[in-house]
Formats: sequence, C-alpha cells, structure tokens
Amino acid sequence: MLAKAIDALHARTFFAAFPENPSPATYGESADSNGREKFQSMMGQKFDELGQADAQDWIGNEESPYTQESLEIKYPSIPVSLLVTRATTAFHVWRKVNVQDRAGILLESLDRLKSRFFEIAYATMHTTGQGFMMAFQASGPHAADRALEAIAAGYEEQQRFPSKAVWDKPMGKFNIQLNKEWRAVPKGVSLVIGCSTFPTWNSVTGIYASLVTGNSVIIKPHPGAILPIAIFVAEIRKVLVENNLDPNICQLAADTSDKMITKDLAEHPDVKLIDFTGNSAFGSYLEGLPGKSVFTEKTGVNSVILDSVEDVDKVAANLAFSVNLYSGQMCTAPQNFYIPESGIKTAQGTVSFDEFAKKLADNINSLVDNPKAGPFVLGAVQNKKTCERITAVEKLPGKVWLKSRTFENPQFKRARVATPVLLEVDSSKKDIFSEELFGPIALLIKTKNTDQSISLAKELALKHGAISCGAYSTDAAIREKIADEMALAFTPVSFNLTGGIYMNQNAAFSDFHVTGGNPAGNASFTNPDYVNKRFTWVGHREPLSVNR
Amino acid sequence: MLAKAIDALHARTFFAAFPENPSPATYGESADSNGREKFQSMMGQKFDELGQADAQDWIGNEESPYTQESLEIKYPSIPVSLLVTRATTAFHVWRKVNVQDRAGILLESLDRLKSRFFEIAYATMHTTGQGFMMAFQASGPHAADRALEAIAAGYEEQQRFPSKAVWDKPMGKFNIQLNKEWRAVPKGVSLVIGCSTFPTWNSVTGIYASLVTGNSVIIKPHPGAILPIAIFVAEIRKVLVENNLDPNICQLAADTSDKMITKDLAEHPDVKLIDFTGNSAFGSYLEGLPGKSVFTEKTGVNSVILDSVEDVDKVAANLAFSVNLYSGQMCTAPQNFYIPESGIKTAQGTVSFDEFAKKLADNINSLVDNPKAGPFVLGAVQNKKTCERITAVEKLPGKVWLKSRTFENPQFKRARVATPVLLEVDSSKKDIFSEELFGPIALLIKTKNTDQSISLAKELALKHGAISCGAYSTDAAIREKIADEMALAFTPVSFNLTGGIYMNQNAAFSDFHVTGGNPAGNASFTNPDYVNKRFTWVGHREPLSVNR
Repeated sequence: MLAKAIDALHARTFFAAFPENPSPATYGESADSNGREKFQSMMGQKFDELGQADAQDWIGNEESPYTQESLEIKYPSIPVSLLVTRATTAFHVWRKVNVQDRAGILLESLDRLKSRFFEIAYATMHTTGQGFMMAFQASGPHAADRALEAIAAGYEEQQRFPSKAVWDKPMGKFNIQLNKEWRAVPKGVSLVIGCSTFPTWNSVTGIYASLVTGNSVIIKPHPGAILPIAIFVAEIRKVLVENNLDPNICQLAADTSDKMITKDLAEHPDVKLIDFTGNSAFGSYLEGLPGKSVFTEKTGVNSVILDSVEDVDKVAANLAFSVNLYSGQMCTAPQNFYIPESGIKTAQGTVSFDEFAKKLADNINSLVDNPKAGPFVLGAVQNKKTCERITAVEKLPGKVWLKSRTFENPQFKRARVATPVLLEVDSSKKDIFSEELFGPIALLIKTKNTDQSISLAKELALKHGAISCGAYSTDAAIREKIADEMALAFTPVSFNLTGGIYMNQNAAFSDFHVTGGNPAGNASFTNPDYVNKRFTWVGHREPLSVNR
Repeated sequence: MLAKAIDALHARTFFAAFPENPSPATYGESADSNGREKFQSMMGQKFDELGQADAQDWIGNEESPYTQESLEIKYPSIPVSLLVTRATTAFHVWRKVNVQDRAGILLESLDRLKSRFFEIAYATMHTTGQGFMMAFQASGPHAADRALEAIAAGYEEQQRFPSKAVWDKPMGKFNIQLNKEWRAVPKGVSLVIGCSTFPTWNSVTGIYASLVTGNSVIIKPHPGAILPIAIFVAEIRKVLVENNLDPNICQLAADTSDKMITKDLAEHPDVKLIDFTGNSAFGSYLEGLPGKSVFTEKTGVNSVILDSVEDVDKVAANLAFSVNLYSGQMCTAPQNFYIPESGIKTAQGTVSFDEFAKKLADNINSLVDNPKAGPFVLGAVQNKKTCERITAVEKLPGKVWLKSRTFENPQFKRARVATPVLLEVDSSKKDIFSEELFGPIALLIKTKNTDQSISLAKELALKHGAISCGAYSTDAAIREKIADEMALAFTPVSFNLTGGIYMNQNAAFSDFHVTGGNPAGNASFTNPDYVNKRFTWVGHREPLSVNR
C-alpha cells in the first residue's frame, strides 16, 4: 500500500485509496444506517473514546446548522501545560520509531477510519452544514487521500538522503575516510488548528505530515466542529496503543468559543510547528510568532475571468453550481466574476454582460429550486455571521441581480440556509471586491476588456491572496496569457470547466492545494516544503575505525 | 557533466568537479604567476569587466589585511532603483529560459571560472586575509563545488513533478479527463548579501540556487571583499551575453562602508528573495522583513566536548590547527572547549584539565612558530575589530593560558596578525561563553563531567546557535548520547578527528552547511528547502479538447 502511495505521489496522476462514493456496494448495505445511528448515539454523551486522562472538565458547544440545536457532546478539557508536557514526553518516544514503522502505523489508522466514514459524514454534516454527499466525500475519503499523500511525501522526503555513507577523499599519499551519517531530526511538538467548515480535510494533512516526520501532535479543533476530527484522533490513538506506544503522540485539545486555548497553545515555547486554517488576521499573527515553523491557509479572493466560450449555457450552469455548492463556504469558491463590458464571445455571437448575469441568476435559481438537488448541494450555513454578511452585501452600491433567500430543506425544517446573492460592481469600485466575502456571495464586475480582467484578478491575488481561479477563453493565446499572469500571482487556474467538474474541487495527488506563494497562505498541500519544514537534516561524521 | 552532478547529489558521497589543489600539473605551469600578475594589474584600476552601464560613480575601498593598504580598485556604483528595475526586466527574460538551458549556462560559467581560480585566490587573500592555500581552495574549487551542488539541487527539484499529465477520473457512466500541468514559478528578484571573510564560498550557493530556479540576482558584496565575487559575476554575465540573454540577470551592486545600500535593496518591494551571511542582528532584521523569503547564516557558538581519547597529543594537535586556521575567522571554528574537572580519559591514564590546556597551548605555539606553516595557516586578520575583541577577552576574569601575540609574515611585514588567546572559564560563567567571540579566541570551560559538557553545548546551540561541534569519546554510548543531544539542537558533530581533517571543514555534496534548525541560521547548503523556497509550484488544468 505504501509503495503504491509513493508511486502515486511521483506520478501525480489520479489516485484514490478510498472510494469516494458512499455506495452500499463498496461500504456494505448497513454502513449508512449504522453510521447514522452511531452518530445519533453520540449526541448528549461524553466522547470517551480518546482515553485522555485527567480531564479538568467535560466541555463542548457544537450546534447543528440543520437543527440549530446543540449536539450536547462533551470532550475532555485538559490544561494546556499538561497537554504540552504529555506531547513532549511522547515526542521522545515517537522520534525514535523509524520512518517505516511510523508510516505503517499511520496507514493502519487510515485503514481503520474507512469503516467510520459514515459516522464522520454525519458528524461533519451536523457541525459544518455540508450536504451529506460532500460531508462524506470531503471528511472521509478525500481527507484520507490527503492524509495518505502527506504520509507518502514525508516517507519520501525523509529518505531523500542516505542514512550513512563512506566519504573517501584522496589526499595524494593517503586517503581520508570518514563515516558520514545523516539524521532527519523532527522539530518537536506540533499544533494543528482546525476550521469550522472542513474539520478533517483541512487538518489531517498537517496532522499526518507532522506525525510521519516524527513530531507529536496536539489538535485544537474549531469549537464548532470537534466531532469529525475527534474520531480521527481516537483511531490514531488506538493504533498507537496497540503498538505499545504512548497515545499522547496525538492528542485532542478541545475548547469552547467562550474560552479558547488556541493562543496559549500556539505561544507555548515547546510548540515548534503550527498548522492553521482560518482568517487572515489570526493566520498572520501565528506566522509572526518567533521560533516556530508555521503553515497557514488564510483567506483569498477567487476570480473567474470570462473572455469567450463555446457554449455559454454550459458555462453558466457550471459556475452556478460552483456558487451554490455548500452555499459558497469553500475556500476555493469563486467570488469575483470579471466580464468585459462588450460581453462574452461565443460561437453563436456575443452574449452581453446583462444577458450573462441573467443566465447565471437563472441557473442558480433553477438549481436551488430543484428539490432533488438544491437542498443537498447548498447544505446549510455554518456560521450566523455569514447570513449577516449577505444582508450587508445587498446594501452595497450596485445592481442586485439576485437576492439571497431561503428554501425548504425537506429533512430539516429549521436548517439555517441562504441562497447566493449576485451583485453587479463596477471595476472602479475596487474597495468592494478586493476583500473576501465569505459565503454565498458573487460579484459581477464589469471590466473594459479581458486584459483588465486579467490585470485585476492578478493584482487582487498578489495583494489579497487567491486559492483558485476559473477562466474561460477559446483563444489559446489568451489562455496562455492568463496561465502566465496568474502563475506570477501563484494562483492555479481551471480553464473552460463545464459538466461535472468544478473550480472548487481539488484532488489529492494531483492538485497542490494553496500554492503558498500569495497572501492566501504560506503552505501547500503537499509540496516537498510542507513536510521538509517539519524536520531538519543533521549530519554527523567520524573517521573509519581502522584509521583511529 | 550535469548528469554526474545530479548523481553525486543523490549519492551524497565525495565528489569534486574542480581540483582543489593549485598544482601546476593540473592548472598549468604559469597559472599561478599569471593569476598573480592579473590580480596585480587590477589594482589601481576600474574593474570594467562587468559591462554594467550608467554608473553614477566608480567606488571601492577594499584594503589588503596583508599590506594594510588600499587596493584602489573601483567598481560601478549603480542606483538601487536602476539595479532593481533592470533585475525585474531581466527576470521576465530569464524565467522563460527552460531549466535545462539555465543549468547549462550556469555550468558553463563555472567551467570558465576554473581558469580564473588563481586570480580569485589572490583577490581573496588580499581582501579577507586568508592564507593563499585556503584562499585558492575556498574561493575557487570549493566554492564552485557548492555552486555546482546548488545547480544540481535546483535542477532536480524543478523536475520533481511532471510538467503535464492527464487526470482521468471514472465517474460511473463516463470519465472526467483533464490535462493538468505544473509550473515551477520563480519568485522574482533575488538579493545575495556577501560577507568579508568568505566572499565567494558563502555567496555562490545562493547566487546559483536563485539563478537555476529562474530568478534574477543582485549581488551586494561586503564592501571589504568585492573583487573575488566580482570576477564570478563578470564571468556569469559574459556567458549570458554569449547566449543572447540580458546580462542584468546577474548584477553586482558594489558599495562602500561609509554609504551602504544593503537596506535599500533588501527593503525594496520587488526584492523577493534574500541570502545573507553575517552578524545575527542584521540577519534577524532581514528574516523579519515581510513578504520575503530569507536565507541566513548568522553567528553561533561552536563547542568541542572532550570526554576520552585514544591519543591526547594527536587530539591537541588537531584542535590547535582548528583554532589557528585562518586565525579563527571561520564560522565553523571551535570556540568553547568543555573539559571535565576530573580530566580527559586516555589509553595512558587520565590527562588533567591543566595538562590538556598546556598541551593545546603548546601545540598552538609550535604551529605558529613553524615558519613553513604558521604564517600560511593563520593568514591575516580581516577586521581591526577582531584584534580589539582579543584584547578585551584577555581582560575577562579567568586564567589566560595563552596570550595573543603577533608573528612575522616573511612576505608581508605589515600584515595584521594575531595568534589565538586561550582563556580558562568556569562553567558557572555562562555569560562569558554564551556569545560568539569571533576570531582567534578559545575558551577552556571546566565542567563537572561530560554530561554537563553535553548539556551546556546543547543549551548554547539551541539558544545562541552553532554551526559545528567537535567531540571526543572512545565510548560508543557517550558518542551516541552526544550525537542524539546535539541533533536535537540541530548541530552536526565531528567525532574523534585527528590527522589532516578538521571540524572547521565542510564538503559540498556530503556536508549540509548550517542545518537551519538553530539560531545560527535558517537555511542549509544545500537541502531541498534551499532551492524549493526560490520558486512556487502552480498547477493549471483544462478538460481534454475532445470533451470540450
């Protein structure tokens, strides 16, 4: 399995170890109902699978965006100093386990987690508001793929250089011979700070990258989305115990929104590595902490550049799906749509700005109003503040092409929902469209021409960050211009997507997630730096014994 | 040649493309005299090989530590804004040259430089104060080896991932097929800031690493040691011109000590990469500049741990050489010698602290007083302040086992010279021995036992940095303890060196120089991060055209 993962990493072609669809044929007839029941049985209980001793309290205030009621699940609250002391002790155990065994143990944990994908899906759904399908895919198989990718990358990087070699230097009359050896020395205690929207997908890469490189890990989930990652931590700890290792190699550090422990953990001098997904202000604070290696995914402004298309209806349908998907709560969701004032060239003639705006609005509406698709694609809104932001956007100067509204989720009448708002903004109003407006918010920006569209998309990516970019052009020279200019802003571009593939999507083993080159984040899933920065090469040397 | 370099990098075994000894058999009978004459003919002249237009002035105040007279060589002074504008224009040319061609051009420049190693040696000698042999080896072949290593590493890392692949995802009834492509996008303008003691060795790694990854480079040498690296820059520019490329891909930015331009360059928003060798205060300032990738080699406190030895005289001779070599002006020179109060165990019984101190002093003296070796091993003192530091150390509380003195250099009567001072310090006086005392200064620290020696060496490396560590023990368990503890302080250890190999020495293709893990610096010659941080992977994707 490991060899396969390594090969896959080398090839960077499509690879998935974990079937992404929750089909009964793959996971068993009763997997779904068992998972749902397991999730339901956890509600109102202590989550006692972790075996983390000496809880000073049992805490938790997760709430389902579908029911707007508390899950009433409680997690152990362990003092920060005790968490770090335990992590430090465990570090000195774990760092001495060789890389092969570390990788084996971590792969075993992923294999175990496969049988818990349904529970994790329901846990994700009722903390993040994702629809069931996305919750299953993103928190289960896709997260596990990202974890596997991190294991493979760490396994490979730690073996880039030989563990020992004889250095033989001719000096004329004699040779100097040294035994040289190189050790991949882990940094120490690693802190992984989770987010509320993708509690496993955005965290497991850092967790597994730190673990495979020999660091101990403390996971501080977002207080609104603890359960999904708690199940991961529980399974990792169980495999550690079975291998007679200290389970505190991997600990959960739950907290509640009224008493956050993130800063106390991050600023602790023994914490050497920090992974973070979340807002830019906190991410930049973490990046500035002295003496730490910090990996961030922060906010960005994602653009769509519309120049020319083959079939404008397919394009509008594809982009409407991207905007609706999880109600725009993905870090890869499009926000700024740049459309030339002269319109979009198509095979059937030019489609004006207004015609395209209407098409996009219509496609969004028809998806929302499709009872078999809408509620499941949009899911629910994780955070009340997102709804407030939508209201504020509707008051901005500019034509509102589509107002946000609610819809009925047949399963969950009390679900917190909001459909996308579409606002037209002139390209001169840069202050409006140069910040991330998280949630189901799309801005239609009228530009002079495609060159200005490219220039604005690039400028905003460089200044404010970008994680994804969509672009539509039938002209190869314009596509290459966009590819080159956005590359200089370190932003990946999805060209001419139609049909069942969307710019929001991001596959392990072939898409680097966040490039690390613009303000949207300083790290990338999973390039060599992502694992290399978690350990340090140290070389020792000594004369061959015969020469002593 | 390139394939060989790549192979060598993989193997990390001994490899040298450039013969390190200045023998007539290798370099030609007249190479030495030609090189010396060429150097002498440069004195008093404008260095006009660069072809950098629009100099606002011709400047330079280099001085030979051997004659204490000005070299009177003048370099073009170009305004910072013009340097950066030219570098930016050249960047967009250079980034479009493919990796193979970039590597080929850079290898060609190294091959040309081979014929200038003697000039470079004399230039190094008369700016740094190094003895001729070190000046030849360090600034010529060893620097070229480090440059070659950087080229090989950059070449390899930029090809870690394929430039394109088809991503084929089964969706049940159909497959989604995307063309995915990955670009290694260089960061932009790179600034390399040189030091006064190793003007080429410490700079070429950054220069060639930035160039091979597609960045344009501005080299800001130390105002006291411009000529050696100016010759490198001139040769690189000539090869660029021959290949019809903008020579401003690589520019020299000379200044004088009374009007330094380093900060103006470093803070320029278009400068994205900075390499620096020098003092910790300036290095930390550079590391703190926002929006830059910074590679530093700063100061450290290097330790020698003496526990037990086979032949104490061989050990004393080896360490005396390490202390005398270039009058202790190497960043890898030992400073703190930890000796147990009970003495050093040897095959012939215990050697007391005092006996070892005397042996070390005697060995230093006998090397200094050997007219065939002393002047050439010690060389001259680059900076007057080093002499002032020696005087200050002799006034510190503690027994002075050896006072610093001068000696006669037969060739250069006015050479600025100083022999090592040996001061005994109690292990309780940590404030004295916990800072770098650059120059021919060695402290003999009396510890309770080897455990305390290890503990102090580790603590100082973690708090104040360390680039090298020497250790002597005949006990395998103690050696492993030292190896493990110093690895946790990210410091490489040379064990039991005697004979013609010294802890100060550091070979390309097998010794990572500076680990990047402790305060002595945040970068390492040449690990994958050293080149990977100079570019960013950006992936674009588009449906296969048949599906559009």
